[in-house]
Amino acid sequence: MSPDRYPSKLLENAVNEFARLPGVGRKTALRLVLHLLRQEKEDVAYFSNTLIRLRNEVMRCGICHNISDTAICDICGNPSRDAGIICVVESIRDVMAIENTHQYNGLYHVLGGIISPMDGISPSDLEIESLVKRAGAGGITEVILALPTTMEGDTTNFYIFRKLKSFEIAVTTLARGISVGDELEYADEITLGRSILNRTEFEKSMK
Amino acid sequence: MSPDRYPSKLLENAVNEFARLPGVGRKTALRLVLHLLRQEKEDVAYFSNTLIRLRNEVMRCGICHNISDTAICDICGNPSRDAGIICVVESIRDVMAIENTHQYNGLYHVLGGIISPMDGISPSDLEIESLVKRAGAGGITEVILALPTTMEGDTTNFYIFRKLKSFEIAVTTLARGISVGDELEYADEITLGRSILNRTEFEKSMK
Repeated sequence: MSPDRYPSKLLENAVNEFARLPGVGRKTALRLVLHLLRQEKEDVAYFSNTLIRLRNEVMRCGICHNISDTAICDICGNPSRDAGIICVVESIRDVMAIENTHQYNGLYHVLGGIISPMDGISPSDLEIESLVKRAGAGGITEVILALPTTMEGDTTNFYIFRKLKSFEIAVTTLARGISVGDELEYADEITLGRSILNRTEFEKSMK
Repeated sequence: MSPDRYPSKLLENAVNEFARLPGVGRKTALRLVLHLLRQEKEDVAYFSNTLIRLRNEVMRCGICHNISDTAICDICGNPSRDAGIICVVESIRDVMAIENTHQYNGLYHVLGGIISPMDGISPSDLEIESLVKRAGAGGITEVILALPTTMEGDTTNFYIFRKLKSFEIAVTTLARGISVGDELEYADEITLGRSILNRTEFEKSMK
């Protein structure tokens, strides 16, 4: 039993539910629940229905597995995007992050995770076979691996790289280097080392 | 329009709803929504229904205005509590905080806020008349004012004190002083000053 004594079982249930969300403790949960109690009934009903509709109606794009309201997502269905390039990412948050840069006009492939034996995630749990199928179907000139620079990310990169080796496709990865605005002395050695090895022409860097 | 480009309108709606909660930014909202997307449909439905039920079914205790599942709350309806003492608090969170100390066995009165002309909250917006009625009905020997030590709290304390002056009721307030475990040098001057003025017998303080 919780050490807190709630004046109402309904309140306690609602706090319990909010406290199950990641990063939400019981104090925060209580604050959120009391906030909802002060809202109009219609607003709380709308909030709740929005969540139910999201869970029941949202789809995965049949091509890139991004979240979508339709069978094919807006990106895959957009004829002005370059269908010859696929950017491989871990999750839809990465799609959103790259889209927000407005620097990429190709398509995506959302793996739904990365290979992690420690967490029991093997290649078959991820959308890797469908990526290989897309690559093998022709018309793809480049696959950009945009996975995290962790051991798991590197493992996944290498696994995908080997799977794609038989195709005539350039496999690239995001440039690693000093963040814009960062000072050299605070950069870690690996990042600084890579940024020297992969140095770019000064003229190109000014674009 | 939001600068973020969401892959789904359903997703964006859900993020918008979560981001309306206090202290929840758009990044956190997205994280929470993606978490819910990974849960079972039944669990999301349960979460949503819990909030709707809370908003539609929770009541205010007819005596102390605490949140309750019944017309009279568990505290007011508990015959083993001392019905002669009323502790006046701003919100139900204060009731929970005091209950968690297990040091108080009287009843409560939840004002629902404190007098704050800046925020347009006047005495008539609060449960002050009902407190005066309770006090006037007889059987009450003490009213403890447990409001915040802010200007608004002081104003509300004084307002209630004047309203209760005509009754034969002791009006008390919480002891202010150095927090247990705090060092003197870090205490603010007002708190330290009050803790000297209101010093207690050493023997009593050891209880």
